[in-house]
Amino acid sequence: MKIVLRAPYLIFVGDQEDYTYVKTGLGIAHWRKELVAGQLRLADNAVGLGVPDMSLDEAVAAGVKSLVIGVAPVGGGIADNWWQVIIGAAERGMDVVSGLHFRLGDKPELLAAARASGAQLIDIRVPPKGIPVGNGKKRSGKRVLMVGTDCAVGKKYTALSLHAALLEAGAKATFRATGQTGIMIAGEGLPIDAVVSDFVSGAAEILSPDNDPDHWDVIEGQGSVFHPGYAAVSLGLLHGSQPDAIVLCHDAPRKFASGWEHYALPGIDECIELNLTLGRRTNPDIRCAGISVNTSALHGNERTDYLAKLAAETGFPCVDPVIDGCAAIVRNLLASPD
Amino acid sequence: MKIVLRAPYLIFVGDQEDYTYVKTGLGIAHWRKELVAGQLRLADNAVGLGVPDMSLDEAVAAGVKSLVIGVAPVGGGIADNWWQVIIGAAERGMDVVSGLHFRLGDKPELLAAARASGAQLIDIRVPPKGIPVGNGKKRSGKRVLMVGTDCAVGKKYTALSLHAALLEAGAKATFRATGQTGIMIAGEGLPIDAVVSDFVSGAAEILSPDNDPDHWDVIEGQGSVFHPGYAAVSLGLLHGSQPDAIVLCHDAPRKFASGWEHYALPGIDECIELNLTLGRRTNPDIRCAGISVNTSALHGNERTDYLAKLAAETGFPCVDPVIDGCAAIVRNLLASPD
Repeated sequence: MKIVLRAPYLIFVGDQEDYTYVKTGLGIAHWRKELVAGQLRLADNAVGLGVPDMSLDEAVAAGVKSLVIGVAPVGGGIADNWWQVIIGAAERGMDVVSGLHFRLGDKPELLAAARASGAQLIDIRVPPKGIPVGNGKKRSGKRVLMVGTDCAVGKKYTALSLHAALLEAGAKATFRATGQTGIMIAGEGLPIDAVVSDFVSGAAEILSPDNDPDHWDVIEGQGSVFHPGYAAVSLGLLHGSQPDAIVLCHDAPRKFASGWEHYALPGIDECIELNLTLGRRTNPDIRCAGISVNTSALHGNERTDYLAKLAAETGFPCVDPVIDGCAAIVRNLLASPD
Repeated sequence: MKIVLRAPYLIFVGDQEDYTYVKTGLGIAHWRKELVAGQLRLADNAVGLGVPDMSLDEAVAAGVKSLVIGVAPVGGGIADNWWQVIIGAAERGMDVVSGLHFRLGDKPELLAAARASGAQLIDIRVPPKGIPVGNGKKRSGKRVLMVGTDCAVGKKYTALSLHAALLEAGAKATFRATGQTGIMIAGEGLPIDAVVSDFVSGAAEILSPDNDPDHWDVIEGQGSVFHPGYAAVSLGLLHGSQPDAIVLCHDAPRKFASGWEHYALPGIDECIELNLTLGRRTNPDIRCAGISVNTSALHGNERTDYLAKLAAETGFPCVDPVIDGCAAIVRNLLASPD
């Protein structure tokens, strides 16, 4: 019942020159380069992902299974030359993977091409059917969930970095994606915020199923239990994930909820405490394993001072995963009593 | 963006003799008799709602605007003689209102009849389109939300009883329905648990819009923030409702979550406390106004002893709304400092 993508990928970049709009493509190439056969660009000065340029026919020859749209269209509409590539991929039997608001199946020529070749059209924003209500039953294996003081504080990056650090430390671990970019990077997952509210914790349960006792699922978080718009998603994900540990994610200078500036962010202590209180309902042994901070707005000693002060105040390992990695959090996680 | 029904109603009871399956019809006739023109029964010994029996043609003559399906089919399928009535109503221009799992528009003959006459087919389980993300902005007017230790502890009944008691006390008040039976009773509302999780608090916001400063929205609750399956719905509803007050609903003998018996229910104090902690995020002035208990399993003095002990322990007015009504809670609610 999860979305599952077929690798290797050809990543479509279009003619986009601005990195901001290509973050999905860049994320996949950064975290899962082994799954990426190449990129397809419509202009020489479009953003490059550090992988070979390929035409559709070259991709077929290289055994590519999916065209992944790694770029967001600017202004809503999709240009004709984009459609030519997308339809051409489906004609050649490649699955097409999209996180666009537009549903792929709503383009008749694309639908016809996919039907003729047997290619799948995969809209990452659309949850699969058949997601059950959460049953709350204990599952085997270990889980660590990213939680946040707000949206867009680095939960996905932290989860990917923590996953890499767990593998580095010799642990068994799987990154579990809950958002569209995460799903494209992981090659599978569930878009948790698009799930009907009755089934959110059930979706989180099937996302991290039974596993080996010493295996860690590293679960991408969403929103914040303090968020006036998205807390329902965050609580369903927390309950269904039954995490043994949480990692609190925060953006150092942020004082107010981004886009909801009439809401002050909670204190880091307060945020950890509420997540533990709520999480205890489905896993009484939940604990905090560390704090991940985006310190990119801090300069020089400010950064190390900030993290050292936070670590002293809270007693948890505090890192900026982009600079420090997550080895300190992994040491704490694996030092768990059991 | 809310579901809105057109009264007066003809309530369809089919040939059902078991009251359990007619609770929607019975609920509407009990709480909103003034909206019910009559009932349509297919057998003389079918459950009676205490309103006149009517044929479809008599309903047309009486100015009926909607056929409301007030009975749940047993075993899933809908019998042919039911379809004859439902299609007959649509042919005569009556809206058809259903809380069935089956979508009305999936029956081609019914869809054709509705298109020909201009009747609406209203599936109460399907949320309207266009529900926004919650913005968390303060709205004018007062709100009281039912919260619970579990599902099915009398939140809807308590809300309806509290609404009646507020009107009785001369207050301005509106019952706000969040579940399908509640929507059929209120004639409008939003099926909050069917809303995509990103939009749950937004749905709660549009359900109880700005109002007069002394007007009370009495909001039907859903689930429990302690429920391992449904807490996401409960938290989104709590945040979006921005309640000035909550009423905690409980079923006296229940010790474990119904259907989730591996989960013990929280203590009443603990449940009030967590709801207030979470609710403070969107309304810092939230308080508990009282406790509503289903005491039907208690006998003789047990009932009054239970409520007296609970009131002494918590300091809140404690009632069984079926027996005591909600006047005691209304007194506390209206005694609010502002």
